[in-house]
Amino acid sequence: MSVEAVLANASANTEEEAADEALIVFTPSGKRGRFPIGTPVLQAARALGVDIDSVCGGRAICGRCQVQLSEGSFAKHGLTSRSDHLTPVSATEQRYDEKRGLKQGRRLSCQVKLLGDVVIDVPADSQVHKQVVRKRAEVRAIELDPVTRLYYVEVVEPDMHAPTGDLERLYTALREQWNIADAYADLRTIQRLQKALREGDWKVTVAVYHGAIRSRNRVVAVWPRFHDRIYGVAIDIGSTTIAAHLCDLATGDVIASAGLMNPQIRFGEDLMSRVSYVMMNPGGDVEMTAAVRDALNTLIGQVAAEAGIERTNIVEGVFVGNPVMHHLLLGIDPIELGGAPFALATSTSQTLWASELDVRMHPDARVYILPCIAGHVGADAAAVVLSEGPYLQDENWLIVDVGTNAEIVLGNRHRLLACSSPTGPAFEGAQISSGQRAAPGAIERVRIDPSTLEPRYKVIGSDLWSDDPAFSDATASLGISGICGSGIIEAIAEMFLAGIVTSDGMIDGSLASATSRIQPNGRTFTYLLRAGEPEIRVTQNDIRQIQLAKAALYAGARLLMDHLEIDAVDRITLAGAFGSHIDVKHAMVLGMIPDCPLNKVSSAGNAAGTGARIALLNGKARREIEDVVTRIEKIETAIEPKFQEHFVSAMAFPHKTALYPHLAQVVTLPEQKTSDDGSARQGRRRRHR
Amino acid sequence: MSVEAVLANASANTEEEAADEALIVFTPSGKRGRFPIGTPVLQAARALGVDIDSVCGGRAICGRCQVQLSEGSFAKHGLTSRSDHLTPVSATEQRYDEKRGLKQGRRLSCQVKLLGDVVIDVPADSQVHKQVVRKRAEVRAIELDPVTRLYYVEVVEPDMHAPTGDLERLYTALREQWNIADAYADLRTIQRLQKALREGDWKVTVAVYHGAIRSRNRVVAVWPRFHDRIYGVAIDIGSTTIAAHLCDLATGDVIASAGLMNPQIRFGEDLMSRVSYVMMNPGGDVEMTAAVRDALNTLIGQVAAEAGIERTNIVEGVFVGNPVMHHLLLGIDPIELGGAPFALATSTSQTLWASELDVRMHPDARVYILPCIAGHVGADAAAVVLSEGPYLQDENWLIVDVGTNAEIVLGNRHRLLACSSPTGPAFEGAQISSGQRAAPGAIERVRIDPSTLEPRYKVIGSDLWSDDPAFSDATASLGISGICGSGIIEAIAEMFLAGIVTSDGMIDGSLASATSRIQPNGRTFTYLLRAGEPEIRVTQNDIRQIQLAKAALYAGARLLMDHLEIDAVDRITLAGAFGSHIDVKHAMVLGMIPDCPLNKVSSAGNAAGTGARIALLNGKARREIEDVVTRIEKIETAIEPKFQEHFVSAMAFPHKTALYPHLAQVVTLPEQKTSDDGSARQGRRRRHR
Repeated sequence: MSVEAVLANASANTEEEAADEALIVFTPSGKRGRFPIGTPVLQAARALGVDIDSVCGGRAICGRCQVQLSEGSFAKHGLTSRSDHLTPVSATEQRYDEKRGLKQGRRLSCQVKLLGDVVIDVPADSQVHKQVVRKRAEVRAIELDPVTRLYYVEVVEPDMHAPTGDLERLYTALREQWNIADAYADLRTIQRLQKALREGDWKVTVAVYHGAIRSRNRVVAVWPRFHDRIYGVAIDIGSTTIAAHLCDLATGDVIASAGLMNPQIRFGEDLMSRVSYVMMNPGGDVEMTAAVRDALNTLIGQVAAEAGIERTNIVEGVFVGNPVMHHLLLGIDPIELGGAPFALATSTSQTLWASELDVRMHPDARVYILPCIAGHVGADAAAVVLSEGPYLQDENWLIVDVGTNAEIVLGNRHRLLACSSPTGPAFEGAQISSGQRAAPGAIERVRIDPSTLEPRYKVIGSDLWSDDPAFSDATASLGISGICGSGIIEAIAEMFLAGIVTSDGMIDGSLASATSRIQPNGRTFTYLLRAGEPEIRVTQNDIRQIQLAKAALYAGARLLMDHLEIDAVDRITLAGAFGSHIDVKHAMVLGMIPDCPLNKVSSAGNAAGTGARIALLNGKARREIEDVVTRIEKIETAIEPKFQEHFVSAMAFPHKTALYPHLAQVVTLPEQKTSDDGSARQGRRRRHR
Repeated sequence: MSVEAVLANASANTEEEAADEALIVFTPSGKRGRFPIGTPVLQAARALGVDIDSVCGGRAICGRCQVQLSEGSFAKHGLTSRSDHLTPVSATEQRYDEKRGLKQGRRLSCQVKLLGDVVIDVPADSQVHKQVVRKRAEVRAIELDPVTRLYYVEVVEPDMHAPTGDLERLYTALREQWNIADAYADLRTIQRLQKALREGDWKVTVAVYHGAIRSRNRVVAVWPRFHDRIYGVAIDIGSTTIAAHLCDLATGDVIASAGLMNPQIRFGEDLMSRVSYVMMNPGGDVEMTAAVRDALNTLIGQVAAEAGIERTNIVEGVFVGNPVMHHLLLGIDPIELGGAPFALATSTSQTLWASELDVRMHPDARVYILPCIAGHVGADAAAVVLSEGPYLQDENWLIVDVGTNAEIVLGNRHRLLACSSPTGPAFEGAQISSGQRAAPGAIERVRIDPSTLEPRYKVIGSDLWSDDPAFSDATASLGISGICGSGIIEAIAEMFLAGIVTSDGMIDGSLASATSRIQPNGRTFTYLLRAGEPEIRVTQNDIRQIQLAKAALYAGARLLMDHLEIDAVDRITLAGAFGSHIDVKHAMVLGMIPDCPLNKVSSAGNAAGTGARIALLNGKARREIEDVVTRIEKIETAIEPKFQEHFVSAMAFPHKTALYPHLAQVVTLPEQKTSDDGSARQGRRRRHR
């Protein structure tokens, strides 16, 4: 009896309970129906549209369709669910149990048949569209809806009387056994098909890519016999680091992760110096394209090795990156991105073969690249938007991905704006006198006593503060080497709160008499954070660099607020590696970000990588972000006169409670005038709680 | 005013003649309509659906839209067509004329505007869907309907306020300027796009491939500014020779042709020996794939050089070949084709990038490969079917592509059957004692005087018969070297008609007394065709080889006739190089083909190559042959017991007028009994007219 007939039967009999039928209720979906005695549970589930996974199509091979009987009386359903309402464990199930193991109480729904009324629970791991766990509670769940799926098929052997090709008989099998009507295959699949079919004795597992219109139902891989697992890789290509996550496409689990420095760094630290490299060295783009693709191959090799799988089992990739990384990955000259009008070669999403990018996974693996938002706001920003989902919220949400360029998104479900702001590399520790990258031994936390003006700090790799007696021993092996981005933020914010720095960013030289930590340096002063080797100071120039960076960031956010005609945001998320290390309170003390309730400010970590992973695991998410990106209003800071205004105003540190009401509830802002009105010192005695 | 509005206007006003409108009649289509005074002729043509070509979209650049005024009174249209009913030659047209030349009386329809009633002739060379001339009158015309077409567009420059990609603005231009709604591009196109746009100052010409569903409106090439011509190449990959035709996709003209020996010959003369080579030498398929692809690259280089064009202007290819050639070209191991069940890896048509086959033309050129019919009946046979079109006819048409395997098609618009028959290489001169390929110096025509039993012959490269006094001098430089396939057919047919050979194929040794040309050779006899150096004889074994080959061919045709339940065919076409040299009467005398009115038997030349060219020039033809191939009934001779029966019966030469009534009207068949009834000689005195 076909599924359709069973379904028709079930609905025809809702009123009268036929004696030869039984009621089946599936949990957690609550879907229910009456089916003839003897109907396999999987068949009933299919007829009712209950989501149960299967790769082997009911042949007791894959074990994906496991279910569990709920025993007891269920008044609301008017039924008693008992184990003898199902056929006993069959020889086939026993064989499966012996071979691959079946958890206590689990049954293969393709084998077990209805004998009476039952309630059947479909565990999460048996669902195709299961939810993937995310660490952060505040964001939406990821629903698994893989674009590439496995199908086990039995293909009819060739017949001289009906001489069709092996490929066409595979298509027939997919149509008849899986209802996949319009499959087609890449040449490389065709080249390998004959061998796989014969090796598997006409039983093969194929991976089918269910892409958008043009790449619908594309057979991308064929394995002889039953093949259990396929994988995908989500990669965030940052200017500085590249991070890869290998995911099991059946479970959504991240099974291995790896990261490495972007080897393009040897061509230039930041994006613009890489674009300059191409301008100065024709063909330099080709070198950088090769470098980044090499790095991807290294990373993919690493995650595959870590997971103990063949890289040919990786059948999908999703890559994101800023526009320059995006272009270099695709083999497109990035020079146009180096100057106005910052024209992208292409802004829409791309779906390619891995082989077109020289990326080694399964040769027919499909690679999906998210759309770019604008010439400075890339596929990585699109991934951040997908990860955080501001377009699903009513709140005015400010999301900042802090890097050499800050990519800034602001808005809600009705309107979403984006821009980028040239913060420069100061937040990453560059252009800071004792600056360094965030690495073991770098100072990352700083506190300054407002009475004594004495500092204490913590370094990456140790949980102790520097005033702890055990600190020296604990950090001896780390070798304190400098101060990282989050460290300099805290240092300057604490200096400001302690009155060492005025709201317009000058180190107050008059305090040199109060503490030996403030020392003249030409016409300005420095603050000694750490004596000894190496000596670590905060110089006037360090403060200027941070002021320039934070003013750019703030001005970008403020510009978007102007466009949205709001004066305050409801929620702030800091994304990116830097964003996840930074202390949000200190960031706000410096005026990097607008005022906001501090419990509404959070770090999202590598949200771009998470967005890439969502796109990898859920095909609908790709259409969703493609659509959202077209609706985002792109603001170009370079041509907005207001940006310059905001930038100049934002150079000062916040010193008016009125401007930062929420922050002022947490810290006492030094309500100073600027240094040039001569009363800078007045605020010094105000203490932060 | 939009085209739609003009059209709406025209139809709204059919009844009353508005004073500010004029009637325009296009010939040869006869389409007519009324349009406002001042409407450009091209716009009126578009509104009426008149087929006028244009690449530049009405910018007076391409000159494809030329038309001609028909002057005079046209009673049936009720109008007078006068030159002053059109705007005078404009400065723009004058510039075009000076730059590129405009034939007397021709106007650019995009520039000239209606001032009064006119009859406008659209010359064939201004139509997109023009007819392509074929040499043979009996076959249907080829209509030009190229899959890849050129479009000149002006792309909007990038704008920071609306930061879309260059690619997306190109798509917008195609949509707005050409109504191509869903264009998309390959990665390589995207990589080259920025440069082309800037070099052409945002004016580019793109080649768009209007393929079937999945590859609809694919931008495959971009050139800066206006680009006039694109080309396609149709290649027939035979086991022995490969032939290429370079076509102008705008006119359909063949502008260069070239051929070369299939370099795979070094791996084996015939198909089965090449398959054996792979069986004996694992990886041998890779060598042969590389060899055939190299040959294609050489040929494409040759035709491009001959035509004086860049190979990157070749944007499409159509390739055909028998199943083994088809598989080796695609990089598929052909071993399965070497034995039952002769399974094809794929039987349907393929559309690929040229680069997937390592074929060097435009890197994004699309290659179309016709479907295969069965394991022995390939894409070349499908191309023959497309070229000849038996599926459009009511007659029962037998088409034979003679090669090492004969591919045989029989049927009509209602039913079409195909099989292949293992004729072996005898028809190509192999396995014949003095056999050789058809090349200068080979004997290709033979006549034997039935009274004297003296032969005369002609060789390739000379028009003289050997009994002409000038023959020796004329052929001295050729060096007579052997006998080719068509020569041996004629020699044996003439020997049969002269009574030298009995109907069961024995050389009648009793005639050795009558002529010194018949000489004993062990237990059999030979016939001396040519004395001297080299001596050329027809041996008993030569006759046996030809008997085996012709019996296989006939048995295949007869088997299809059985399936179709007919005893005679209405029409016969011999395709292939051999088929075009053979004399159809002699072929029928030998019983290679069934009886048929001799004026209904013809040679089609390289019909496979013609079919490939049709598929290159007409997209609908591809869908047509794909559909026809699915409807062809495939007969496998290897498993049909009747094939063996027919084969055995067909070993004899036709000696019953009843069996060959049409042939018997042209020649007197020796109504012999077979040699073993001892009365073979009786027929000898019967003469052919």
